[in-house]
Amino acid sequence: MIIVLKPGTSDVDVEDVCRRIGDLGLQAHVSRGEQRTIIGAIGDDRFKARLQALEALDCVESMVPILQPFKLASREVRAADTIVEVNGVGIGGSRVVVMAGPCSVESPEQLRTVAEGVKAGGAHILRGGAFKPRSSPYAFQGLEEAGLRLLAEARKATGLPIVTEVLEPDKVGLVAEYADILQIGARNTQNFSLLKEVGQSGRPVLLKRGMATTIKEFLLSAEYILAGGNPNVILCERGIRTFETSTRFTLDLNAVPVIKKLSHLPVVVDPSHGTGHWEYVAPMAKAGLACGADGLIFAAHQKPAEPLSDGAQSLKPEKFVRLMGELRVLAEALRRTL
Amino acid sequence: MIIVLKPGTSDVDVEDVCRRIGDLGLQAHVSRGEQRTIIGAIGDDRFKARLQALEALDCVESMVPILQPFKLASREVRAADTIVEVNGVGIGGSRVVVMAGPCSVESPEQLRTVAEGVKAGGAHILRGGAFKPRSSPYAFQGLEEAGLRLLAEARKATGLPIVTEVLEPDKVGLVAEYADILQIGARNTQNFSLLKEVGQSGRPVLLKRGMATTIKEFLLSAEYILAGGNPNVILCERGIRTFETSTRFTLDLNAVPVIKKLSHLPVVVDPSHGTGHWEYVAPMAKAGLACGADGLIFAAHQKPAEPLSDGAQSLKPEKFVRLMGELRVLAEALRRTL
Amino acid sequence: MIIVLKPGTSDVDVEDVCRRIGDLGLQAHVSRGEQRTIIGAIGDDRFKARLQALEALDCVESMVPILQPFKLASREVRAADTIVEVNGVGIGGSRVVVMAGPCSVESPEQLRTVAEGVKAGGAHILRGGAFKPRSSPYAFQGLEEAGLRLLAEARKATGLPIVTEVLEPDKVGLVAEYADILQIGARNTQNFSLLKEVGQSGRPVLLKRGMATTIKEFLLSAEYILAGGNPNVILCERGIRTFETSTRFTLDLNAVPVIKKLSHLPVVVDPSHGTGHWEYVAPMAKAGLACGADGLIFAAHQKPAEPLSDGAQSLKPEKFVRLMGELRVLAEALRRTL
Amino acid sequence: MIIVLKPGTSDVDVEDVCRRIGDLGLQAHVSRGEQRTIIGAIGDDRFKARLQALEALDCVESMVPILQPFKLASREVRAADTIVEVNGVGIGGSRVVVMAGPCSVESPEQLRTVAEGVKAGGAHILRGGAFKPRSSPYAFQGLEEAGLRLLAEARKATGLPIVTEVLEPDKVGLVAEYADILQIGARNTQNFSLLKEVGQSGRPVLLKRGMATTIKEFLLSAEYILAGGNPNVILCERGIRTFETSTRFTLDLNAVPVIKKLSHLPVVVDPSHGTGHWEYVAPMAKAGLACGADGLIFAAHQKPAEPLSDGAQSLKPEKFVRLMGELRVLAEALRRTL
Repeated sequence: MIIVLKPGTSDVDVEDVCRRIGDLGLQAHVSRGEQRTIIGAIGDDRFKARLQALEALDCVESMVPILQPFKLASREVRAADTIVEVNGVGIGGSRVVVMAGPCSVESPEQLRTVAEGVKAGGAHILRGGAFKPRSSPYAFQGLEEAGLRLLAEARKATGLPIVTEVLEPDKVGLVAEYADILQIGARNTQNFSLLKEVGQSGRPVLLKRGMATTIKEFLLSAEYILAGGNPNVILCERGIRTFETSTRFTLDLNAVPVIKKLSHLPVVVDPSHGTGHWEYVAPMAKAGLACGADGLIFAAHQKPAEPLSDGAQSLKPEKFVRLMGELRVLAEALRRTL
Repeated sequence: MIIVLKPGTSDVDVEDVCRRIGDLGLQAHVSRGEQRTIIGAIGDDRFKARLQALEALDCVESMVPILQPFKLASREVRAADTIVEVNGVGIGGSRVVVMAGPCSVESPEQLRTVAEGVKAGGAHILRGGAFKPRSSPYAFQGLEEAGLRLLAEARKATGLPIVTEVLEPDKVGLVAEYADILQIGARNTQNFSLLKEVGQSGRPVLLKRGMATTIKEFLLSAEYILAGGNPNVILCERGIRTFETSTRFTLDLNAVPVIKKLSHLPVVVDPSHGTGHWEYVAPMAKAGLACGADGLIFAAHQKPAEPLSDGAQSLKPEKFVRLMGELRVLAEALRRTL
Repeated sequence: MIIVLKPGTSDVDVEDVCRRIGDLGLQAHVSRGEQRTIIGAIGDDRFKARLQALEALDCVESMVPILQPFKLASREVRAADTIVEVNGVGIGGSRVVVMAGPCSVESPEQLRTVAEGVKAGGAHILRGGAFKPRSSPYAFQGLEEAGLRLLAEARKATGLPIVTEVLEPDKVGLVAEYADILQIGARNTQNFSLLKEVGQSGRPVLLKRGMATTIKEFLLSAEYILAGGNPNVILCERGIRTFETSTRFTLDLNAVPVIKKLSHLPVVVDPSHGTGHWEYVAPMAKAGLACGADGLIFAAHQKPAEPLSDGAQSLKPEKFVRLMGELRVLAEALRRTL
Repeated sequence: MIIVLKPGTSDVDVEDVCRRIGDLGLQAHVSRGEQRTIIGAIGDDRFKARLQALEALDCVESMVPILQPFKLASREVRAADTIVEVNGVGIGGSRVVVMAGPCSVESPEQLRTVAEGVKAGGAHILRGGAFKPRSSPYAFQGLEEAGLRLLAEARKATGLPIVTEVLEPDKVGLVAEYADILQIGARNTQNFSLLKEVGQSGRPVLLKRGMATTIKEFLLSAEYILAGGNPNVILCERGIRTFETSTRFTLDLNAVPVIKKLSHLPVVVDPSHGTGHWEYVAPMAKAGLACGADGLIFAAHQKPAEPLSDGAQSLKPEKFVRLMGELRVLAEALRRTL
């Protein structure tokens, strides 16, 4: 951390800042320039949150962090790519992994049809929501445990592992009984109680980026899970909030190479929620693949105009199959498989 | 809801859309213009989420909502301002209510000193965090139940009601035993499980706006609590995320008159978290008062450079007292009291 | 345009709104719902700006546009893709066009070396700035006309057409003497005087999206040029401003399929300025290609650590050559050439 | 400037960076920590743009500016508030200055009526647009020079000084013949050619903040005018672009105290354009006053539902008069006059 002092700071104040840095177990390194004196706080930054309080001193103009605030998630701690294994499917290796399924589990027929459709198209993992976070209290909130049971049946029928969302810390155990991967949704990226709980769960976690979460904060959220003892975290870019309204969110593909540089964790891209319109899903899926994503996650539905949620962004099975064919050719050009 | 059809949509497709609207119990009203045919879906929009699925039809260009998606929170359902009563303090009336205290409860001494300081300055309600949501897993996470007990002691000593944050649905009962107002933080504005739980709690709720939450979504989150049977919701603007980095967040005071137009619920402003710098707290507090806020909430600390969190934005007691004096004069000019 | 009236609007007011709509030469179409009365204004919307003034009426709750505000730029006016021809290079067809060169023209040697390097790598068009818009008045502002002359020499030496930025309406004539394509930079996307002037220039225009310009506004800016009689507009996505700071801007690739849906104009992507870091240029270039861009524009420099501007985002020649090889394979997989 | 090196950077590379810093006339100061080596570049930062190129070196992880990039606009160069004098009206002193008038000059009658109305209400300066920047080429573009003549007549009739916008560098002379204050609009905040030209004009300048301009960039734009020899710059906050759509822009009042801390220049607030809705103008005007603005600028119109532009945000004269009364009481409470 660099502490920048205001012009005209007295030597007494400089010494006071140095003493406070020393009290936190760090070394102070003073550098006097023509226009500003700056003090480096050198050492382990686990106490950074306490250091930050120095900003309250009258003599401090600003504080500039030098190190990334996360550790276990960083390439410095682990240089090699992490590959998360899920029932024989490796996420983070040379194979691009495709997760697909309906936003909401609605009925046995709906789930079976879609599951069979996405399996036929070549998906590796089945997605489907049993607990649904809805902006409006009047919208369909999911089939809950009945939905989880349907997902387990679909796994049995298709052999595809299941990824589904968990919304509350005290439901982690229940969802983990049925799911192969626990999904943390975009509204819970900074639900730290939930992160701690899935950190203890032993199940791989698909962690979605929040709509206003910076990449640094996103990696700090992953750090919560890793610090809880769970190394199997898959990051998912699914769109951030910007001023642009022609897409539902702004899918921020830049996050893929940025995360790949900073972290060893696998990254998947969600073009369905990220754009909010099925017409943009195929081009943005290809773009996600091209910039280095380890996987893609899609909303798919047999009859998108009739579902209880999110029809606008769902692909029909025949469109999904066609897209998978195009993605296979693209993956090969990128020296990956799918 | 208005459904805009693509140019060249056939009569068969128009009829299909009308039939689907009818199936949802709404009336379809077709209007054929030179360049577009539009269909209005008339009636109760509780089924809007299902209507939205029509966007998946090939003939649909876009869908435009006409009504606000919330009801109980709206001025149409209740024209008069709601006044939330908390131990004799009315929030939402002509008196401007001030809540102040430390971001985190750190120790008996710290809390007692700050509580006495803000009481002396004229605060009406004591704030303080026992459970702290932190971006980093390595930061101080709060004293938890021990913190709640200290808050209860401070209430006994000062007579000030307590507002404190609850982070998890299954902690609502515990926190409600100690707190007079349950705070839902900015990272939980769309934690719908938690909203449902505090909707059942019988305690007034201070609901903070999320950093990427639109005002519509914010009022929908309030709707969750109201729909659960709890009419005592206080809304809090505390800054949104924008491209500007000279403040920690962008305190969006425009939200105050917009919410006042749309809703009967009281609104308070948090200039401490909204700006992140104590130097900007006083001017933005005055601005919040001037644009119509019903209350203000401040971070205050005896020794801001030493706390376990958020020192940069905390006011020292003497600055708080001076600010309260200025706010009193301002309130009078605005024909309110403080 | 749909005009939504407030609940309880009197018949007199409804008639007044209808009369005003009629006065603008449009037809009013009233639709009375249970909760709102809405009025459609049907007809040519050239007068929309005047219609918008109805929002000032006390009885009007909101106004909702139905039609896109641009015309000549839209697919409705022209369904087939526009191909802009520049000295034998077609932009917008099956061949992906690559523009590359230094951000600033600095010296004859620098430009010659870079121009030869990018030609050897397979670039089709040479870019380089002679007039530079700089946030700081103390930064290098470009070689101006001397820079234009160097660009013309580089064209002669390499055979590559030239694209360079013009900053002021009264410099359009001068720049058009030297340049094959006039670039309008991101800070001038809504410099309407400049747009009108290049609309008259007879030269193809590379129009960059502003950092806070919506896609609708971007297409309206293109409309200014088209309406001036110049059909040769190339759109360029180069990053928007968001809260994320790990990239300099947020390259918004979603804009590519959105524009392709709405407009017939060719789209190129600028991963150099969009990300601001050379390490992210290659993955985002590939992503741009994969989501349907008609071209890519790169900053390239022999010695990026020494230039007078924008070294951080510039590719060295050997990295450019390697990237071009990868893009060629990718283009083939996408059934395009490069 | 602080240069942060990647872990494992060799001594040779450290020396190379130091040499490059020295070549730019600055002193290098190396500080070796446990996890990073950082190098401070000490001295005058006029060459910062060149320093920035070091980011292109493979061994550089990031670069962190320490000093603000502007000088003449900063409080360090001039501690006392600047007061801009315009025909006897001082902007930046204890008197709050009010500018009001129509967005567009439409006709002699319209301008006369509005000018008399705002004068009667107590406005100090008359605003009105003769050249209008419009997103759509099909919207009314202003009366141009005829509009300037009408403004001059209105000045003669009312005695109020005139502020009006100039859009192009080569129109600065023309507009300066008629106007007392030259306005630079939000779409031209980074039109550096125009900034240089008004820097030479000798007329006070009202510089509006761009919708995606950071406060630092805003002050750099002011620096262009100051560096041109014109000390009379008035800054205007008028709303930034965010994800929130219930207001047209997000009026960022935080900018007022931030600018007051960093700069000696006067600041005015535009609640009309900042919110885009007349209903929000009064509360946000009061808020702007309360957080320390030196002035306010309003759109006013006799018949807002009929103008050629921007009726939605225009105050009717009687509303303006009532607001002025409220602002007067508020100014007194803030120990200012109006």
